[in-house]
Amino acid sequence: MALKTLVNRFKVLFFLFFVVRFHNSVQGRLLSSESKPHRNDAAAYARWLVSQNSWGVLNTISSELGGAPFGNVVSFSDGLPNEGSGIPYFYLTTLDPTASNALKDQRSSLTISEYPLGTCGKRDPENPACAKITLTGKLVVLDNKSEEAELAKSVLFSKHPEMKGWPKDHNFWFFKLEIEDIFMINWFGGPKPLTVDEYLHYKSNNLAFELLDTI
Amino acid sequence: MALKTLVNRFKVLFFLFFVVRFHNSVQGRLLSSESKPHRNDAAAYARWLVSQNSWGVLNTISSELGGAPFGNVVSFSDGLPNEGSGIPYFYLTTLDPTASNALKDQRSSLTISEYPLGTCGKRDPENPACAKITLTGKLVVLDNKSEEAELAKSVLFSKHPEMKGWPKDHNFWFFKLEIEDIFMINWFGGPKPLTVDEYLHYKSNNLAFELLDTI
Repeated sequence: MALKTLVNRFKVLFFLFFVVRFHNSVQGRLLSSESKPHRNDAAAYARWLVSQNSWGVLNTISSELGGAPFGNVVSFSDGLPNEGSGIPYFYLTTLDPTASNALKDQRSSLTISEYPLGTCGKRDPENPACAKITLTGKLVVLDNKSEEAELAKSVLFSKHPEMKGWPKDHNFWFFKLEIEDIFMINWFGGPKPLTVDEYLHYKSNNLAFELLDTI
Repeated sequence: MALKTLVNRFKVLFFLFFVVRFHNSVQGRLLSSESKPHRNDAAAYARWLVSQNSWGVLNTISSELGGAPFGNVVSFSDGLPNEGSGIPYFYLTTLDPTASNALKDQRSSLTISEYPLGTCGKRDPENPACAKITLTGKLVVLDNKSEEAELAKSVLFSKHPEMKGWPKDHNFWFFKLEIEDIFMINWFGGPKPLTVDEYLHYKSNNLAFELLDTI
């Protein structure tokens, strides 16, 4: 590596030291799927998993099927990648069982795998080192005239532009998952301890290291 | 195309006509993810989706989380691709909530998406033309000394070779999903009508056309 490059890197590091020191609440917007968080930083890892993925399986209780847990493939968004809030929003039609189940019984979970991101290497999808997360809580419909419905529309339509053209007469509604419990495995040794509060209020303070990856 | 090639193709077609005519119960072992079944052949499509995928989300009722539906990323196998039985088998540890939930309440579903197969083109994962299937039923543990446990081991370990090395002292058991209901969307217009019987007893009679794809 040329000396000039080294000096430039040092300057950047020095600058970033101050950026991070005085702005350590800055959201981690520079993570990429290549620079996933360290597995021991449970909140960062969970937020990265939710942010990077665009789809998962949304589970509800099916009254039609004797109260069975009913999983359904859905798209979701918590914001643009690395700009998310951690809260998953959905655009669901009541023509589908999931939305109509949730209107009767809000108990729900959203399950996401790291596997389709392609960052698990050659590991099996069930290998604990290939991360998975299940957010359990209440699936609630949003009032179409609320500010939060506008937010949901914005984060969903920016990540899933195709949704803009979905038929207006198909009874689509915006929903969100109000998270009450987090189950995440991203390494051996069982689920990572992680509270909903830690997850929702996560702010990256690793900006310097993340930025360095991009230099 | 050379005349010789054309003649050879004709010979193969002629031969296959008889193969198909007299052996139309032969399993469709030659489908590839590139030659997915026609969307109107619901049984073929469902079996292809289950056969081609190696992982999905397995949902159980969580007594620990107030009876919430709890989805979990798992690997499964119904046999080698295009050689499957349609019955999903699992290798689950009771250290994980899913297996222990199932031992208390067998109600379960397995949800699989076509999206990670890469055959949905540019469609959104929630677009009805990007297929999804949910098999609902009972998640039952197999007696380790039974013939079916041997079968489960064989179909799982051949598709997921890494499982052979998973720790023997981690209380892994073989499970299967006894399917009672099938929900599949693979195009616009709502779920495809498909009975469990049609699904389980599906036999491809399109061998000629499938073989032709490989010539």
